[in-house]
Amino acid sequence: MKRLNILLFDGFETLDVFGPVEAFAMTGEYDIHFLSVEGGVIANRHGVRTETEKAEPRPDEIWLIPGGMGTRPLARDTDFIHTLDHLLAGAEFILTVCTGSALLAETGRLDGLRATSNKNSFAWVQGCGPAVDWQRQPRWVKTGNIYTSAGVSAGIDMALGFIADQHGQDAAETAARRMEYHWNTDPDHDIF
Amino acid sequence: MKRLNILLFDGFETLDVFGPVEAFAMTGEYDIHFLSVEGGVIANRHGVRTETEKAEPRPDEIWLIPGGMGTRPLARDTDFIHTLDHLLAGAEFILTVCTGSALLAETGRLDGLRATSNKNSFAWVQGCGPAVDWQRQPRWVKTGNIYTSAGVSAGIDMALGFIADQHGQDAAETAARRMEYHWNTDPDHDIF
Repeated sequence: MKRLNILLFDGFETLDVFGPVEAFAMTGEYDIHFLSVEGGVIANRHGVRTETEKAEPRPDEIWLIPGGMGTRPLARDTDFIHTLDHLLAGAEFILTVCTGSALLAETGRLDGLRATSNKNSFAWVQGCGPAVDWQRQPRWVKTGNIYTSAGVSAGIDMALGFIADQHGQDAAETAARRMEYHWNTDPDHDIF
Repeated sequence: MKRLNILLFDGFETLDVFGPVEAFAMTGEYDIHFLSVEGGVIANRHGVRTETEKAEPRPDEIWLIPGGMGTRPLARDTDFIHTLDHLLAGAEFILTVCTGSALLAETGRLDGLRATSNKNSFAWVQGCGPAVDWQRQPRWVKTGNIYTSAGVSAGIDMALGFIADQHGQDAAETAARRMEYHWNTDPDHDIF
């Protein structure tokens, strides 16, 4: 079992988190943990209140960073960005969903790399990473050990794409079928 | 704002809950509450631990019942089924996702009505409601004030269908677009 660390913060977008969680869980290959900078209960405006562990750096493991309105203040919070950068040190893979890529961009880890984000917040995200090669068209982008996805539901497609890269196309298609999910398999094309 | 009551239990399926939550939240029309029979933290095998309020009957409100492996023991738990029936008394609408329809069937509220469920657990679900007119083909079914959906992701499509019925097709399409979600709009057709 690979450990998947999901970093929550107040104001995370619900489906950014729990869509990928469902896809990863369906494979039976991932031990999923919900973390936050301080630990404790993390809430969002959808009424979700989820328990988390206090985050520590976890080298050689997988991290997922969601988006949501909570990214707006955090992208301007230099302490948070410094902590995020510290937590991700030595990560095997970093996955972001939606405006989670804005937080990763603020650490500098996307500088010079192709990346994508939510289409409705694209201009704001671009401002968070002027040195990033932002791509509006893709559903998700893989660059080295970093995956970034477009908005909300695109995180499910990216997670299945990651599963395909790690465990083969059949494993991803099986997970999608068990979720009864119409997987958008083409990372380069997004209708939104 | 309409109140939407989501009934959680240990072993609920992650996306059965949080997919519809995202769709309803995107409309800005719903005040979403997570409830359970005893209240407190509800967990599942995906590492999710979510706080809930203690459930009380809430007539003239909307209820959503997810599926998941947790439905297996609950469908045989006559105290739980009795409590569920009590909680749903006078509900304005009842929505079930995936094997959540098995729990509703056990209350007798689906007897004689068309309903659907997860395709991978269909035989088990049928056994929970021998007097229900189970339909294998639909993505979701509306029968009076009850909506039942097929497996996991189908809950998102059903939620958007419910939103379309309540607020119009444009409202549902706007929610889907903000989720960057490819909505499967036809309730009668499911590829799974």
